[in-house]
Amino acid sequence: MSGFEFTISATDGKARTGVIKTPRGDIRTPAFMPVGTAATVKAMLPAQVRETGADILLGNTYHLMLRPGAERIAKLGGLHEFMGWERPILTDSGGFQVMSLSKLRKITEEGVRFHSHIDGSEHFLSPERAMEIQRLLGSDIQMVLDECPAFPATEKDIEKSLALSMRWAERSKAAFGQQPGHACFGIVQGGVYPHLRQRSAEALKEIGFDGYAVGGLAVGEPQTAMFETLDAVVPHLPPERPHYLMGVGKPDDLVGAVLRGIDMFDCVIPTRSGRNGQAFTREGTLNLRNARHAEDPSPLDAECRCVACTQFSRAYLHHVVKANEIIAAMLLTAHNLTYYQDVMSELRAAIPKGEASRVADRVARAYARDAS
Amino acid sequence: MSGFEFTISATDGKARTGVIKTPRGDIRTPAFMPVGTAATVKAMLPAQVRETGADILLGNTYHLMLRPGAERIAKLGGLHEFMGWERPILTDSGGFQVMSLSKLRKITEEGVRFHSHIDGSEHFLSPERAMEIQRLLGSDIQMVLDECPAFPATEKDIEKSLALSMRWAERSKAAFGQQPGHACFGIVQGGVYPHLRQRSAEALKEIGFDGYAVGGLAVGEPQTAMFETLDAVVPHLPPERPHYLMGVGKPDDLVGAVLRGIDMFDCVIPTRSGRNGQAFTREGTLNLRNARHAEDPSPLDAECRCVACTQFSRAYLHHVVKANEIIAAMLLTAHNLTYYQDVMSELRAAIPKGEASRVADRVARAYARDAS
Repeated sequence: MSGFEFTISATDGKARTGVIKTPRGDIRTPAFMPVGTAATVKAMLPAQVRETGADILLGNTYHLMLRPGAERIAKLGGLHEFMGWERPILTDSGGFQVMSLSKLRKITEEGVRFHSHIDGSEHFLSPERAMEIQRLLGSDIQMVLDECPAFPATEKDIEKSLALSMRWAERSKAAFGQQPGHACFGIVQGGVYPHLRQRSAEALKEIGFDGYAVGGLAVGEPQTAMFETLDAVVPHLPPERPHYLMGVGKPDDLVGAVLRGIDMFDCVIPTRSGRNGQAFTREGTLNLRNARHAEDPSPLDAECRCVACTQFSRAYLHHVVKANEIIAAMLLTAHNLTYYQDVMSELRAAIPKGEASRVADRVARAYARDAS
Repeated sequence: MSGFEFTISATDGKARTGVIKTPRGDIRTPAFMPVGTAATVKAMLPAQVRETGADILLGNTYHLMLRPGAERIAKLGGLHEFMGWERPILTDSGGFQVMSLSKLRKITEEGVRFHSHIDGSEHFLSPERAMEIQRLLGSDIQMVLDECPAFPATEKDIEKSLALSMRWAERSKAAFGQQPGHACFGIVQGGVYPHLRQRSAEALKEIGFDGYAVGGLAVGEPQTAMFETLDAVVPHLPPERPHYLMGVGKPDDLVGAVLRGIDMFDCVIPTRSGRNGQAFTREGTLNLRNARHAEDPSPLDAECRCVACTQFSRAYLHHVVKANEIIAAMLLTAHNLTYYQDVMSELRAAIPKGEASRVADRVARAYARDAS
């Protein structure tokens, strides 16, 4: 693990804050990773992503292997050079998108054969190929290939899928090999079944990873089920390694997960919602399409430091959302990512002071309105 | 005309360079005005537009009157405040878009009644209302309402339309009244008929304007016809006032027009082309969709200072264009506007040295390839 080190500087209950050191820069935790699916965080320039406070991005192996292709990106100097982002990048293994986006999938012990959602072309992803692609991309944190069954699934389905995922995890780790300064993370599966989650965690620890992700959540289960699963699984993860909750979530999901010992997150919600005219603010979510904003000269979020909040009114944002202007996606994405980063930053500041719950409660209260 | 002053600092043949001073800042001429149709230059933040070198934007009265509405923008502090652009804004009168975009138009002496292309609602635009809207927007340079017949049109149609436009010009100027620091420009019509163009110019001089635009070009006529028209009309414009060629054009159109005495331009081509994957460079136009760029690590334009050229490869631009990513529109728009501004900047530097033709020839040669 040389060149990749996680140091926890303070804890508050189960919540932790610290820093992951990598040759490409520090990742302050808790960390939110904006999703840069196709070698771009949609509607943002790399410098703008950095301005939100992001230390690390996520790239999607599935999308990049299909277009423009991992070998092509490698030839062009790797993903960082290609997309103009010099700091750390975590890549997923492609497994989740193969299941959710591709067509005509066939899963065998060897791997998964599928057809591209873009042009129907046939592709094959195995643990070995998933790791090879991530290495070609130059990913700083590489994820094992796993199978992620949709929620709801029977216990038996989950158990069978889990067994396959653990065999694939072992092959993934072997394929990752030794890459100084790069890390390989395992993924805990097991659905909402505590004993399966624990079995998965134990199997991964046996293999030994630089970090441990919790997968298979954010697939439709209620927040309570997600939190219960975290309560059951996080205590079984090595405390000295980063804990990454994949694909989660809304602001209140994130703060609740931090209180349960999670260090890293990725999610398309702030970027996708931004493109749909929805903003996450200190007052909860706002739909800028709503006519009540049409003549409102006030900023989206008076406490926010982003370009949307410091230079434009709600009335302007309403106008450009209604007119379907690209600047609407640019401004609301910048805002949402800034808000997500600010929540992380507040948690990082609160944990050493024993105030993580206070921050989490405030965010949860703001977002409870949307649950009603 | 207090607070609005045009000073010519050098000439080179008919080409001129100088500065238009306004209370909101200087406009260096020759000037290219990016088009901010619906209170946004598509895919650009205001600060990014400024970085390209733009001193002034164009806003579209037609679009803004329909959505969000001139009275609403006025209530929100005017167009500059609304869209976050503090520097000068020129607004057109809406006449051209009423003719080209709206439905069920009825033109009378009084004005034009039409239906919105957005929601079918009925609206009325007269010279008085066009000027009222531009005043509500807070426009720095306001254009008279005119009628702009499509090319080709018979001489008789043009003559009749011209007579109406001249009566509307007089009413527009009267409606503009006295607005210190703001300017009102007349528009020369007359199609490709030199004697009608001259008649139009004389009529406008009689009324007296702060600047003179050449309208009714860039409607499908060949470049030679446009240049011949400029050769016929510009000598009849007051030399001490700014000359503005509306809606033109490609880089080689612009340089040719500057050689013929034009000081100001606006056009959607750089922004629209950028959203369609087309780039204007020192080598001519490039279609980034073309597969030959797929593995090209070189920049779009090695001499360009924009974000697209300094931070990304042609291969990346090809990828994001093909993937239909918003960043493609952002980067290519930034590039195209930067290139357009750099052409203006080079002309401004060349004119005092008597080298305007040299710059114009170089640009024309690069773009001649596309004409073939």
